[in-house]
Amino acid sequence: MPDSFEAKSTKSQLNAINDALAEGNTALVMGLLQELKPCDVALLLESSRTRSRLDIWQLIQPDLYSDVLEELSEDVRNGIIDKMLPEIVTDALEEMDTDDLVETLHSLPEAVSQDLLSAMDEQDRQRAELGLSYGEETAGFIMNTDTITLRPKINVDVILRYLRLKGDIPEHTDTLYVVDNENKLMGGVAITQLITAAPDVPVESLIKDSISIPVDMEDGEVANLFERYDWLSAPVVDANNHLLGRITIDDVVDIIREDAEHSMMSMAGLDDEEDTFAPVVKSTQRRTLWLGVNLFTALMAAMVSDLFETTLSELAVLAILNTIVPSMGGVAGNQTLTLVIRGMALGHVTGSNARWLISKELAIGFLNGVIWAVLIASVIALWKQDLMLGAVIAFAMMINMIAAGLAGATLPMVMKKLKIDPALAGSVILTTITDVVGIFAFLGTATWLLL
Amino acid sequence: MPDSFEAKSTKSQLNAINDALAEGNTALVMGLLQELKPCDVALLLESSRTRSRLDIWQLIQPDLYSDVLEELSEDVRNGIIDKMLPEIVTDALEEMDTDDLVETLHSLPEAVSQDLLSAMDEQDRQRAELGLSYGEETAGFIMNTDTITLRPKINVDVILRYLRLKGDIPEHTDTLYVVDNENKLMGGVAITQLITAAPDVPVESLIKDSISIPVDMEDGEVANLFERYDWLSAPVVDANNHLLGRITIDDVVDIIREDAEHSMMSMAGLDDEEDTFAPVVKSTQRRTLWLGVNLFTALMAAMVSDLFETTLSELAVLAILNTIVPSMGGVAGNQTLTLVIRGMALGHVTGSNARWLISKELAIGFLNGVIWAVLIASVIALWKQDLMLGAVIAFAMMINMIAAGLAGATLPMVMKKLKIDPALAGSVILTTITDVVGIFAFLGTATWLLL
Repeated sequence: MPDSFEAKSTKSQLNAINDALAEGNTALVMGLLQELKPCDVALLLESSRTRSRLDIWQLIQPDLYSDVLEELSEDVRNGIIDKMLPEIVTDALEEMDTDDLVETLHSLPEAVSQDLLSAMDEQDRQRAELGLSYGEETAGFIMNTDTITLRPKINVDVILRYLRLKGDIPEHTDTLYVVDNENKLMGGVAITQLITAAPDVPVESLIKDSISIPVDMEDGEVANLFERYDWLSAPVVDANNHLLGRITIDDVVDIIREDAEHSMMSMAGLDDEEDTFAPVVKSTQRRTLWLGVNLFTALMAAMVSDLFETTLSELAVLAILNTIVPSMGGVAGNQTLTLVIRGMALGHVTGSNARWLISKELAIGFLNGVIWAVLIASVIALWKQDLMLGAVIAFAMMINMIAAGLAGATLPMVMKKLKIDPALAGSVILTTITDVVGIFAFLGTATWLLL
Repeated sequence: MPDSFEAKSTKSQLNAINDALAEGNTALVMGLLQELKPCDVALLLESSRTRSRLDIWQLIQPDLYSDVLEELSEDVRNGIIDKMLPEIVTDALEEMDTDDLVETLHSLPEAVSQDLLSAMDEQDRQRAELGLSYGEETAGFIMNTDTITLRPKINVDVILRYLRLKGDIPEHTDTLYVVDNENKLMGGVAITQLITAAPDVPVESLIKDSISIPVDMEDGEVANLFERYDWLSAPVVDANNHLLGRITIDDVVDIIREDAEHSMMSMAGLDDEEDTFAPVVKSTQRRTLWLGVNLFTALMAAMVSDLFETTLSELAVLAILNTIVPSMGGVAGNQTLTLVIRGMALGHVTGSNARWLISKELAIGFLNGVIWAVLIASVIALWKQDLMLGAVIAFAMMINMIAAGLAGATLPMVMKKLKIDPALAGSVILTTITDVVGIFAFLGTATWLLL
């Protein structure tokens, strides 16, 4: 009886390797590495800083290269490939499943991937070039070609005998595909159906539901379908319904995780491939763009305040309170923005309810405005003993909360139409709007009423 | 041959239903609803506003209730259950798989779920209470009990005959479990192995890798294991290795999606169950807490500025520039915070590399400080024709960028130790720190050097 799997064991193995690495005990590291699965070796590499990664890589058995590379994130993988001999990379690539091969080649610099492609053998080059031709983020890009196909008239017992002779069924195969003599997809038959069916029925009588994914479907949409219909795999077809390959749930899980990370990282102004353990200079470079954009918008807000320099110099209290209204608008607007981006990703926000959603968020903005205007007016009236000042900040709060609701709801819709990723730029545009509107409303009203 | 599945078709079906609803053509809506799968009915309900949801619900066939309820998100589901007759809810619950039954009961108000439980029949109540006893976010909470178990000595051909007689294999079954006569798990045998194995070998000889999930493992960790090892299902065991049930990939996909949404929504200050189409008042309530917290921190920043009222009244230019340093610190700190939160979720950040990561982020903070200090000093020196003012803002920028890196890296680690969700409160605490440090550094230095 094999040992029972324990989740803790991987952690203690990784700790043991780290200790052995720190001691420079190479023999021990090699021994420990041999006990790890490729995905755990990948976890070890991703949890190490760049320099240690290459030390560890030297100690891995070459026959594991392709399995480990498949599991690594883009940044880490490319960093390692960069230091490997081209012949060894080519060998590793040729052993990969088509989807991993295509993704790896695509993520490398054009010149490097061209060199690798031309060094690969004919058959592998062809499957790579075919996959690359579908373009990133499509069903064709993530599909595998290891499908088992059946002819419609063959009986269940013949198929079971054939499978037993074949002996090896590709990983994650839950469904075999029935195709006609032009390789057009007729439908799928689950392996569990084959087991429970009578031996003497033709397989075509077992076809139930026929699903298929067009080869050019966007991968996010593929993921939504898998999630909604609880599929384990789905066949991929061309425009004429010819079977090209299949997509399996393990790749879809990766897409779901990557899409979610992309949204979260983009909204914080990070490149979503940023590697936690990349060197300082590289990480700093990757974060520069966003900080630059933010400096620009902060300067813009400062310039708006600059228009009211006279007011500010006469009433220092306005300077003290100047950040409250923009800050509240930013938070309220980001709440709406995030909710609408999520609603669009889940397919809940459509043409027919967009208008209603905008008016709902406007109403929430109005209600928020009333609540926080009353509250801030009371606080300021008490703190600064100035009723008029309270009224001014309350009015600015009203205006900015409504602007925040409107901008938060409409921005993602407009950006989607313009094919800009709302998660990436939505938040910074929104904050600029709420900063500018907030400062104008507050200092403008103050200039008008208090001077 | 069945029609080929098209992704577009669901969209057009949903549009047709919305049109029919708008026209009040009840008969047409009912007809169209009958063509939809339960998950598509759920999508329709989630894409509709609250009032329309109940109209649609009235038109659904009662035998679909349990399937549709299973697919709905918590908020929408509870809203509908609230309006249903208790007897009908009980009937629907009894038809659910254990994991959905447990989740639904758990999400309802205590009093409602107790009433429903006591109205359920003995057997269903027991499986529900057992699941509830494991506690939310554990493996026991999300497992199903529909496992097929085998005895070790039985031959493959006997098992295949048994399955054929049984005729019905539970959904998403890729592996059957071998248990000893005390129901202790010995390991799993894939269905594909059964098909390709020789008929006369005992099933125990086919056991390869033995994996198992402890019933009290956190569901996020379960999801990480599924993702890392590309599992389709995994057995759940108690502390004595007795087989209790199994977890399937479709439930894990839901957990991954929910966890990712939770992080994204929490970081924007939203309750992660907030329903896009909830009524205005309810949505406003749900967003109030975060806006209140933000008002508090904005007032705190204002009070820090208030300490420098004399400085601000003498130099209005400081009021104009007062937001730049806090804003840049907030963005840089949130970049670090998000990266560390992600690293912890992926299991990359561990005790052994935490210290290195903090020093890395401090170094990035220093480098960012240098870059943006030089830039902002040049801009301000040119704009305001004041070298000293440029030097002051540059110094404040340096201080705040380093504070941002330190706070962004350490906060999630400290919060995790205190068992506070860093995605929920990390961002607001971080922004408070970068606001306070930024204002102190800028106005303090200005008071010291410019007055």
